[in-house]
Amino acid sequence: MLVVMRADATREQIEAVIGRIKSDGYDVHLSTGVERTLIGIIGESPTPLREDNYSTMDGVDQAVRVTSPFKLAGRNFHPEDSTVHLKGVSFGSRQKIAVIAGPCSVESREQIIETAHAVREAGATALRGGAFKPRSSPYSFQGHGELGLEWLAEAREQTGLAIVTEVMDPALVPMVAQYADMLQIGARNMQNYTLLNAVGVSHHPILLKRGMMSTIEELLMSAEYILAQGNWNIVLCERGIRTFEKYTRNTFDLNAIPVLKDISHLPVIADPSHAVGKWEYVEAVARSAIAAGADGLIVEVHPRPDEALSDGRQSLTPKRFKSMMEQIRQIAQVIGRGA
Amino acid sequence: MLVVMRADATREQIEAVIGRIKSDGYDVHLSTGVERTLIGIIGESPTPLREDNYSTMDGVDQAVRVTSPFKLAGRNFHPEDSTVHLKGVSFGSRQKIAVIAGPCSVESREQIIETAHAVREAGATALRGGAFKPRSSPYSFQGHGELGLEWLAEAREQTGLAIVTEVMDPALVPMVAQYADMLQIGARNMQNYTLLNAVGVSHHPILLKRGMMSTIEELLMSAEYILAQGNWNIVLCERGIRTFEKYTRNTFDLNAIPVLKDISHLPVIADPSHAVGKWEYVEAVARSAIAAGADGLIVEVHPRPDEALSDGRQSLTPKRFKSMMEQIRQIAQVIGRGA
Amino acid sequence: MLVVMRADATREQIEAVIGRIKSDGYDVHLSTGVERTLIGIIGESPTPLREDNYSTMDGVDQAVRVTSPFKLAGRNFHPEDSTVHLKGVSFGSRQKIAVIAGPCSVESREQIIETAHAVREAGATALRGGAFKPRSSPYSFQGHGELGLEWLAEAREQTGLAIVTEVMDPALVPMVAQYADMLQIGARNMQNYTLLNAVGVSHHPILLKRGMMSTIEELLMSAEYILAQGNWNIVLCERGIRTFEKYTRNTFDLNAIPVLKDISHLPVIADPSHAVGKWEYVEAVARSAIAAGADGLIVEVHPRPDEALSDGRQSLTPKRFKSMMEQIRQIAQVIGRGA
Amino acid sequence: MLVVMRADATREQIEAVIGRIKSDGYDVHLSTGVERTLIGIIGESPTPLREDNYSTMDGVDQAVRVTSPFKLAGRNFHPEDSTVHLKGVSFGSRQKIAVIAGPCSVESREQIIETAHAVREAGATALRGGAFKPRSSPYSFQGHGELGLEWLAEAREQTGLAIVTEVMDPALVPMVAQYADMLQIGARNMQNYTLLNAVGVSHHPILLKRGMMSTIEELLMSAEYILAQGNWNIVLCERGIRTFEKYTRNTFDLNAIPVLKDISHLPVIADPSHAVGKWEYVEAVARSAIAAGADGLIVEVHPRPDEALSDGRQSLTPKRFKSMMEQIRQIAQVIGRGA
Repeated sequence: MLVVMRADATREQIEAVIGRIKSDGYDVHLSTGVERTLIGIIGESPTPLREDNYSTMDGVDQAVRVTSPFKLAGRNFHPEDSTVHLKGVSFGSRQKIAVIAGPCSVESREQIIETAHAVREAGATALRGGAFKPRSSPYSFQGHGELGLEWLAEAREQTGLAIVTEVMDPALVPMVAQYADMLQIGARNMQNYTLLNAVGVSHHPILLKRGMMSTIEELLMSAEYILAQGNWNIVLCERGIRTFEKYTRNTFDLNAIPVLKDISHLPVIADPSHAVGKWEYVEAVARSAIAAGADGLIVEVHPRPDEALSDGRQSLTPKRFKSMMEQIRQIAQVIGRGA
Repeated sequence: MLVVMRADATREQIEAVIGRIKSDGYDVHLSTGVERTLIGIIGESPTPLREDNYSTMDGVDQAVRVTSPFKLAGRNFHPEDSTVHLKGVSFGSRQKIAVIAGPCSVESREQIIETAHAVREAGATALRGGAFKPRSSPYSFQGHGELGLEWLAEAREQTGLAIVTEVMDPALVPMVAQYADMLQIGARNMQNYTLLNAVGVSHHPILLKRGMMSTIEELLMSAEYILAQGNWNIVLCERGIRTFEKYTRNTFDLNAIPVLKDISHLPVIADPSHAVGKWEYVEAVARSAIAAGADGLIVEVHPRPDEALSDGRQSLTPKRFKSMMEQIRQIAQVIGRGA
Repeated sequence: MLVVMRADATREQIEAVIGRIKSDGYDVHLSTGVERTLIGIIGESPTPLREDNYSTMDGVDQAVRVTSPFKLAGRNFHPEDSTVHLKGVSFGSRQKIAVIAGPCSVESREQIIETAHAVREAGATALRGGAFKPRSSPYSFQGHGELGLEWLAEAREQTGLAIVTEVMDPALVPMVAQYADMLQIGARNMQNYTLLNAVGVSHHPILLKRGMMSTIEELLMSAEYILAQGNWNIVLCERGIRTFEKYTRNTFDLNAIPVLKDISHLPVIADPSHAVGKWEYVEAVARSAIAAGADGLIVEVHPRPDEALSDGRQSLTPKRFKSMMEQIRQIAQVIGRGA
Repeated sequence: MLVVMRADATREQIEAVIGRIKSDGYDVHLSTGVERTLIGIIGESPTPLREDNYSTMDGVDQAVRVTSPFKLAGRNFHPEDSTVHLKGVSFGSRQKIAVIAGPCSVESREQIIETAHAVREAGATALRGGAFKPRSSPYSFQGHGELGLEWLAEAREQTGLAIVTEVMDPALVPMVAQYADMLQIGARNMQNYTLLNAVGVSHHPILLKRGMMSTIEELLMSAEYILAQGNWNIVLCERGIRTFEKYTRNTFDLNAIPVLKDISHLPVIADPSHAVGKWEYVEAVARSAIAAGADGLIVEVHPRPDEALSDGRQSLTPKRFKSMMEQIRQIAQVIGRGA
């Protein structure tokens, strides 16, 4: 951390800062400039460093952190790319592009089984489907719960596709983990720390979606919660952020893909369906994600989008999805990957 | 709902939309314009209306909802202002300005008891203090848990101040409710529906903070979750939203105060500490909130901000808090309220 | 400026940075920590310091500026509050609250003269009205141009109110300045540097509105353009920023008022009409701005808002404006000011 | 336009709205629902329709526009893709990918000529370079002005590359157009209507960059200003928008590319350098833009980025640029285009 003193800071104020650093158990490196004094805090100590403790002292202009707040999620700690393995599919930079596809909600046994066969036939490597749905209205369809999980398990039995599904309640993590091959933490729960701790303890593979209001750094800090519990099976997912633009449902933060691949070792996938929110643009966004270096995709596919109980506006038909998969394979080849 | 057809929609496409509306059990009101056809969906039916189901049909440009999604939180349903009563303090437009004050975290028995006496002496009507802290880093101080709640209860015993504290884990709602007079749902958990349902069932008074990137409508929809469980004791809190501005911690959405008071019957308070994030501006923001019509405030006060384990940068000293209270009382008087 | 080296930076990379600093004519203050090396750049040199020049060097993590980029607009340079005087009205912290009122557009001779009398009678200290209108559509009403300015001048003659009007074209600054007592730089032109230079040269009083997408620092940098041309007669205006919230036209950044008053000496006013965009909330926002320390207001008033050619949705009637003025006077008194 | 009445609107209020529509010269289509009355405004009239005029009437809940505000820029008016031709390079969906490359600023005769040769050798089709620079600080390098344009012209003479350069001052449009093959409207000037009108009159090819906090619709409305003056030679450019994310300079709105290609006929290119702001991510962003369907790129290239007077942090070396061009060609081929 670096403490920047005000131009008019007195010698006593500077010494008070130095005194505090020492009493916190750290070393001081002083830079006395013409205009200002800069005080570097270095070394190690059991006392945690808090910017606020220094920025509130008299004569201090600001206290600036100069190291990343995440450790286990970063490349400093773990330089090599990680790989996450599920039943029959792997996520990572040395793997083929992994594509999770399926409906927003599991609506019926027939719907999920029909979709599972369709997406497997088109080349998907895992099946998505929500049994517990986070809806902004309490009056909207909230999912079929454990019954939906049973139907997903039956779809897996018939197609061999791994199952990815969301968990919202920390108390239900063990139950959902009995059915699912990968637990999804949804965007609204990215900073639900009780839930992050619960899935961290479970050691099950996790799909961690970026919150619509969260920075790249906060996404990595949420991964850090899970890693700190000893669960290293985390795949990150960029799914669009909230901005002032209204024409699309969210703004796909394409930049986040090369950034996350650079500063973290964790696999990164993209969700083009939520990122743009209109099915006619999903293929273009999916191509761009792979071209930018994503390790996979999660895509909403519904056999009859106009009958969907949720997210029909952004769901591909199986036919469109198949066309998307062909485009993805070609882009993947250009950047030296299989799909 | 209103279905806007494209300029080039065919007669068959229009009839398909009308057919679907009828099969969903609704009535149709048709407006055939020179440029476009508009199809209004009216009446009542057990089938829920989903914009996506119509917007995905051929020939449709957009499907627009024309009524509010919230019911119980709105003035149509409940025209009169609500009042929420805790032990010894009430929130609402016919009440005096209610001020909840205290430290971000309960750090020790001594700290919380010292602060409780100080804020009561300055005129606070309730005591805040976090025993369970949502922190973006798993390595930051996470709160003293139930021990912190015991200290809060002791502070209440000594001062008579009602206790407001955050609950993060749905499973801990009954335990926290045994200690607290009001349960706080933090900004990061505004859309944690498992938690909203749990506090809805509890019927305890709730302080619902707006998410840092949630809209006014989403805040009311989260209140709707709690109301739908039969818990009407909800106070809303504007605490600043996330924007591109970096000079302040958040951007205080002052507009939200008159808007919420206009479209909802629930009491509304403001959190100037988080809204601006620097103690030197907290008084100005607090004055503005009361001038705009807020029913109260929640303010961070710490006896020694430079030693705080969290949020020291935005905490007032008891002396500053006392000065703030005097300003608030005068503003309250001008707009015809006590404080 | 401070150069933060990467944890794995080599001795050669550190020496290359030091070499560059010296060849740019600055002094070096080195802090060698356990984890990283920090290199402070201090002293003075004719070579401008560019963060990019250092951040692109091998081994560098980041280059951080530690002093404000604005000079003349800041308190370091000019600790005392400035005052801006127009014909018959002054803006500044030692002055009464100044209120500029009038229609968005000058629509006709009758409309502007009628409004001028009405707002003067209610206590306004200056008259606003657009003769050149920046409209997002080329097909919308663009203003009456010089004819509108003539009508404004006639309104001034009849009422004695100073005239505030927008200028958009650098070439027209001298012409508009012949009619207006204060030139308004609109939000869309806050970073139109050709225009800023032109009004800087004119030495006319300037109302500089914050861009809807601009930070507080950028607003002060735009003021710096005008100040650097020797024109010190600048009043800053917070008018709402663009965020994700859709219920209101803009999000009023209330925080900006105490921040600007703290870090700059320039007078600051607020535009509650654009800040919230719906007339029913304008009074509450106006009260909050004065409570937070603003030196004045600019408010849209129209004798018949439903006939307005622009911004009718946010315009007060003269009657409502009069009621607002009474509230403002009382709030001003509480914080120790006249109005 | 559609006027949505409140649930409690009276018969008189509805009739007042109908009366106004008729007196404005339009036809009425009435939908009387169980809950609300909807009033469609249709037909044609010389009186422009203003939402505010209706939304302010008693009993009205909202007035909603149901047609796009842009005409000439939209596909309804001009279904076929447009092509823009400069000296030796064309932009459009039936053309090869066009790549404009060069430094942020023209710094010296040697620098621009060296860069021109390097980017031509790597496959660029036009040369960029700023002679007039919009800088947020008046103390930053503002460009060499006309001298810079002369050096650009010399670079064109030597390499045959078309010249793209920014114009900021409406009065200088004819002068800059004498040197440049394409005039750039920078992000800060996207809503500088005086400038848009000036370049509209010139009939010179225009590169219109999206403002950093402008919507897709506003970008098309700014194009409409130029089109309305009869200048159809417009290329749109997505260059990143301002959001809460701080890790990158801007947030590249990848979604805007397929959306703009869908709703407008104008060619669309991307600026990956400003979109991400760090050179190490520029190649990934460039690949994604082409994969999403962009017709070209504008990229910052500098022979020695660490000596650049501006934007060195995001400039590619000629060697990196060459590598980027090879990747672009392969992606272009996959989506059926040359480069």
